[in-house]
Amino acid sequence: MKIIIFGGDGYLGWPTAMRLAKKHRVFVVDNFCKKKIEIENQVTPLFQQVSLQERVDIWNKISKKNKIHFEYGDLLNHRFIYDFLKKIKPNAIVHYAEQPSAPYSMIGREQAVFTQHNNIIGTLNLLFGVKKHCPNAHILKLGTMGEYGTPNIDIEEGYLKIKHKNRYDILPYPKSPHSIYHLSKCHDSANIIYLCKIWDLKVTDLNQGVVYGVKTPETELHKKLNTSFHYDHIFGTILNRFITLAALNKPLLIYGKGEQKRTFLNINDTLQCIELALKNPAKKGYCKIRNQYTEIFSLINLANQVRDAAKKININIKIKKIKNPRFELENHYYNPTNKSFSKIGLKPLKLNSNFIIESIKYVQNNLKSINEKTIYPNIKWKI
Amino acid sequence: MKIIIFGGDGYLGWPTAMRLAKKHRVFVVDNFCKKKIEIENQVTPLFQQVSLQERVDIWNKISKKNKIHFEYGDLLNHRFIYDFLKKIKPNAIVHYAEQPSAPYSMIGREQAVFTQHNNIIGTLNLLFGVKKHCPNAHILKLGTMGEYGTPNIDIEEGYLKIKHKNRYDILPYPKSPHSIYHLSKCHDSANIIYLCKIWDLKVTDLNQGVVYGVKTPETELHKKLNTSFHYDHIFGTILNRFITLAALNKPLLIYGKGEQKRTFLNINDTLQCIELALKNPAKKGYCKIRNQYTEIFSLINLANQVRDAAKKININIKIKKIKNPRFELENHYYNPTNKSFSKIGLKPLKLNSNFIIESIKYVQNNLKSINEKTIYPNIKWKI
Repeated sequence: MKIIIFGGDGYLGWPTAMRLAKKHRVFVVDNFCKKKIEIENQVTPLFQQVSLQERVDIWNKISKKNKIHFEYGDLLNHRFIYDFLKKIKPNAIVHYAEQPSAPYSMIGREQAVFTQHNNIIGTLNLLFGVKKHCPNAHILKLGTMGEYGTPNIDIEEGYLKIKHKNRYDILPYPKSPHSIYHLSKCHDSANIIYLCKIWDLKVTDLNQGVVYGVKTPETELHKKLNTSFHYDHIFGTILNRFITLAALNKPLLIYGKGEQKRTFLNINDTLQCIELALKNPAKKGYCKIRNQYTEIFSLINLANQVRDAAKKININIKIKKIKNPRFELENHYYNPTNKSFSKIGLKPLKLNSNFIIESIKYVQNNLKSINEKTIYPNIKWKI
Repeated sequence: MKIIIFGGDGYLGWPTAMRLAKKHRVFVVDNFCKKKIEIENQVTPLFQQVSLQERVDIWNKISKKNKIHFEYGDLLNHRFIYDFLKKIKPNAIVHYAEQPSAPYSMIGREQAVFTQHNNIIGTLNLLFGVKKHCPNAHILKLGTMGEYGTPNIDIEEGYLKIKHKNRYDILPYPKSPHSIYHLSKCHDSANIIYLCKIWDLKVTDLNQGVVYGVKTPETELHKKLNTSFHYDHIFGTILNRFITLAALNKPLLIYGKGEQKRTFLNINDTLQCIELALKNPAKKGYCKIRNQYTEIFSLINLANQVRDAAKKININIKIKKIKNPRFELENHYYNPTNKSFSKIGLKPLKLNSNFIIESIKYVQNNLKSINEKTIYPNIKWKI
């Protein structure tokens, strides 16, 4: 298969590219917009990465498999998209190319507008391009479990059978997301459901949980093939921040009560899910929606796991609750399903203390380069 | 009250401005983007209107009431919005300033992207401006009944109490709209519900049906105070197209089976609703959603009403079904409610044969200026 990965420079885009290159012809595209946001906000990943172009060169030298092809491009530039899709005629497209940070989207007007414009219009351009030049390509679109919010009913996979006044319908799952970023993903999903239907496109929308881990069999082939580890308050996920604070011997910071529950998965399970979704494509004309996560933890439970694992290597840290900078329910029902991936064969990894210990050590190896103040949140949701 | 009307040049914006000017200080703002779309697509309203500036001058001369103030401005220009809101500090804002045509949004990529960009980002800019400069202002945002689509369950007002696996929640009503334009309004609504909640804004989201009629007590004060009557396939609503075809003695064109049901209201009821919504403002922090229509007709029922009324003035016309250029259910359950406006005192007008006859005569008075070919649809939903 010929597969284009939009957002191929990213935390997940790059490991996905290497994995898929073992069996397919892979084209990575990026506009490096996340790098620009890093500079704007003075945040950097823990370990410097070499440029995507250099990583591609290294991969192409050491890998005996298919070469990866790099192309600079922006989904906001529809002329680029149209030309590129026309030239490549991909069989599948993995679409990671969105502004991925909820806190960033909540900084102010400019960031909110950038996020919704970039994500919504970029995705529209891609769909129009696919309709015109490769209408049979299977699009894997990355969404987030955060689209659903934390409703007081079970979270199904994208659609909900609703009984109301003795009548039934199956409708898009009603969403209550918690940031401008999450809203942008909801808008994408609604546009996709509709355009799939009227244009007979083949799209799988993946509502992914919080991904952790940086090592995959492919990143281990060469130290310059690493992916990014963000520990900052903008791109750093909660587990990365806990691990970094543990490595620094600082209290683990919980936003609010810590009873907030979220979904999680290991980066190797993300790759497994992408491969499974590619092997089990959506039908034409109906957007297939899969919830992509393996475990559910409350923030406090996650903090306890990190504290307990740290203790095993003689790091004794406290858990500290701070005023929640976000606007979210801190005590809520949470029962999503992920059965559509179990059905097609997902074998989930579990978060465990060995992984946490290994991650703390990974951070400790580069402790000097940490800019500690970027860990602490300074973006407030409710102004 | 000081009230700003964004989209004050429009079919509804202008009559709303005159009505509200009788009791309030009114500021009309427009960027004339609809006029540009008219030129692009070679469609014109039946009767030429003088410029908004000239209408404002005429109103200010003949009205003994408050003067209307005009300002050129674009919601995509946040600097303008911020400065203007800071200067005026309005008590209320009526937001009509969106690309209003579903067929236009379905022409192609450029129009689809323009529609979502203009509507979503314009509304975001407005909300950010209000938060910054007049957080107590009551925003009346015009949405559409088309946001809901035609689900197989009753349509409530913006939210739905859902029972699922023996648990309950009240969630945003799950929507299945039928065009890129309608999707843009859904995205607006979702953004508004969220930003209302986190910023304690005061917003009423009005899901309006198809509006008919051009005469209000205020438009009748001077012939140059008229509002626009569009009969074309882009901006012309179904009733306007039927009335125009009747005046031309041509068959009434039904898209598809004609069993599609839609909501309707008289322009004078739109004005009544706007006044009622202003008098009954939303509470801070919770977006109040009202369905704004008075009657439900199927297309075939509407065609029959026009045919029967025309017969009374000796116009004998047929009803002709054509292949539906749109992608929509042609036979569906449809049971929306509008009780929130009944509760606050809406006294609805009814569509009747006198109104239809009067409208046909209105069109006949300017028959020569009609460009007949613009009535017939040439935009196809499903390509």
